[in-house]
Amino acid sequence: MEAAAIRQGPDTGRAARSRTVTWEDPLIGARAAVSMSGLEYMQAIAQGEVPPPPIALLLDMAIVEVEPGRAVFELDPAEYQFNPIGSVHGGVLTTLLDSAMGCAVHAMLPAGSGYTTLELKVNFLRRVTTQTGRLRCEGSVIHLGRTVATAEARIVDGGGRLVAHATTTCLVIGPSSDRSNR
Amino acid sequence: MEAAAIRQGPDTGRAARSRTVTWEDPLIGARAAVSMSGLEYMQAIAQGEVPPPPIALLLDMAIVEVEPGRAVFELDPAEYQFNPIGSVHGGVLTTLLDSAMGCAVHAMLPAGSGYTTLELKVNFLRRVTTQTGRLRCEGSVIHLGRTVATAEARIVDGGGRLVAHATTTCLVIGPSSDRSNR
Amino acid sequence: MEAAAIRQGPDTGRAARSRTVTWEDPLIGARAAVSMSGLEYMQAIAQGEVPPPPIALLLDMAIVEVEPGRAVFELDPAEYQFNPIGSVHGGVLTTLLDSAMGCAVHAMLPAGSGYTTLELKVNFLRRVTTQTGRLRCEGSVIHLGRTVATAEARIVDGGGRLVAHATTTCLVIGPSSDRSNR
Amino acid sequence: MEAAAIRQGPDTGRAARSRTVTWEDPLIGARAAVSMSGLEYMQAIAQGEVPPPPIALLLDMAIVEVEPGRAVFELDPAEYQFNPIGSVHGGVLTTLLDSAMGCAVHAMLPAGSGYTTLELKVNFLRRVTTQTGRLRCEGSVIHLGRTVATAEARIVDGGGRLVAHATTTCLVIGPSSDRSNR
Repeated sequence: MEAAAIRQGPDTGRAARSRTVTWEDPLIGARAAVSMSGLEYMQAIAQGEVPPPPIALLLDMAIVEVEPGRAVFELDPAEYQFNPIGSVHGGVLTTLLDSAMGCAVHAMLPAGSGYTTLELKVNFLRRVTTQTGRLRCEGSVIHLGRTVATAEARIVDGGGRLVAHATTTCLVIGPSSDRSNR
Repeated sequence: MEAAAIRQGPDTGRAARSRTVTWEDPLIGARAAVSMSGLEYMQAIAQGEVPPPPIALLLDMAIVEVEPGRAVFELDPAEYQFNPIGSVHGGVLTTLLDSAMGCAVHAMLPAGSGYTTLELKVNFLRRVTTQTGRLRCEGSVIHLGRTVATAEARIVDGGGRLVAHATTTCLVIGPSSDRSNR
Repeated sequence: MEAAAIRQGPDTGRAARSRTVTWEDPLIGARAAVSMSGLEYMQAIAQGEVPPPPIALLLDMAIVEVEPGRAVFELDPAEYQFNPIGSVHGGVLTTLLDSAMGCAVHAMLPAGSGYTTLELKVNFLRRVTTQTGRLRCEGSVIHLGRTVATAEARIVDGGGRLVAHATTTCLVIGPSSDRSNR
Repeated sequence: MEAAAIRQGPDTGRAARSRTVTWEDPLIGARAAVSMSGLEYMQAIAQGEVPPPPIALLLDMAIVEVEPGRAVFELDPAEYQFNPIGSVHGGVLTTLLDSAMGCAVHAMLPAGSGYTTLELKVNFLRRVTTQTGRLRCEGSVIHLGRTVATAEARIVDGGGRLVAHATTTCLVIGPSSDRSNR
């Protein structure tokens, strides 16, 4: 995941910067996932046996810990993630929170099961800039029922300050379900 | 915003793809924003007078309509936005929804005022893939008070099907406020 | 539903007031519901053929319109609903919103089907007191899928001002499902 | 708070039950609150020096513990709280969660300050009936900033099972603010 190349583009009058992201066919991972438990799948990603999902490379986001019901992701705030008001877009923070919550749920599911995120709610507490330092996001499962799971996550910055927190509702799906439409 | 270069990377054993994103110093826009109303600022972005925010280039997301209390964004679902389960990451859809809602609020604020998003909640209704077609997201203000605004947004796909919907709570901030910490 | 008796209690040093609520066995309604569609059930309540649920009598809340995908409730703000800071408790407004959203979903379901509310989110925009006037809450379905429905609702006061709004996620349940635990 | 009288009504053909609730002028408490810190105010309620708010008597809900940033409420599920589908209405559970979260925030505020709840989101995990046993709800502050606070709460039943959980966003208000409209 750390392989994402970042190259400075040619300087123009308006100070252009550029970044090149490289990823692999996401269906390699999605196909591998079918025969693995959620925990096995995420461990295979963490160990580089299965390519990381494109979104992780796009945002330079990495899974650093995973166990049943708990997942930790990290992300470096960077200028290419900025919104029009000079800070990291809330959607980037949400991607981090959603990933940690989804993986915490997924890591409790056996092979052949899956999940889909029905909804999530995020609170943003603190502006994130390039001065903020590396973000750490821990997601954990609150409830795992037969058809519904809920989870929460918090993002803490390099100085240990709480940046954002979230909760989510997931639908747990058995092997025979059609997952394309809820 | 459409200038984001997409180049095919050299093929490796595991089918690498690559994409290069180019952006300009986001402080150019953030500084310009200070003397403009929200509507003027977003119109300046839409007309190319102010560089688009990096996040819009990163996700190939464009503002296509803006008026007081209403903003429309579009985004093309693409493989580089995929999660580990083979579809566009919910965080990307949230970025689109958050942008439309935030801009709808911002477009009602006079020069010298700003806003910060306190929270948002998203419902995901339908999986998005590269077959889905261009997404259109319309955000609109529900309530604008002296200190708080709320807004909602919906994403519709190329076939007119509802993909996701959201609501948000924003804090409206006057010119003298310190915006770094809520 | 309007039958809820309100009687003034004996005056003590600290100005006691009292209210007596009368209701009928809620299992009469719950049992009747099994053989009816959601719309038939709510029409039977509205027409007095089935006793209203106790909560409607407790809060003097009445369903005034119902059709597939849409339900309207009304409620009179009153002192017995007050929180410690001198206004109607947000939980009372949430009860009204949840009722309108749940009934809007229920009114689309055939006999033998049911639903359960997975989550809801409410925005409170305006303090409600006994001066506010009768509240009207309209709920409507946003999405009805095979297993998940989403809905929204808004409360408007006597002067047409928006007081609160909400969204919800419901799980749609077939006749054979065990509904006690999600 | 335990003073709420419950009397069985005369039996009719349709098994009427009744309950009489007695409360005191809520302005006594609201006026007392002005000169107290949030913690002092809630301790005065818990010790019976200030009358409990009407909603607490209506739902037989009591504050059992309070300290800065944390509040615990209890409530007995009862038939008079039932929805049309034979269980305690989600709005009653939300009232309990909202009370615990609001009081946890209020207990951190000095005299002259107040708060208003901007939004809350609740997940319902388990149906509550009269068989469920007494509910215990603990609310705790996640973040307290100068203008915004966030908090969370969980309801656990007599058997220690998680029934519902919630988060909220509150606006913190200084002494001179007009609190009637956000």
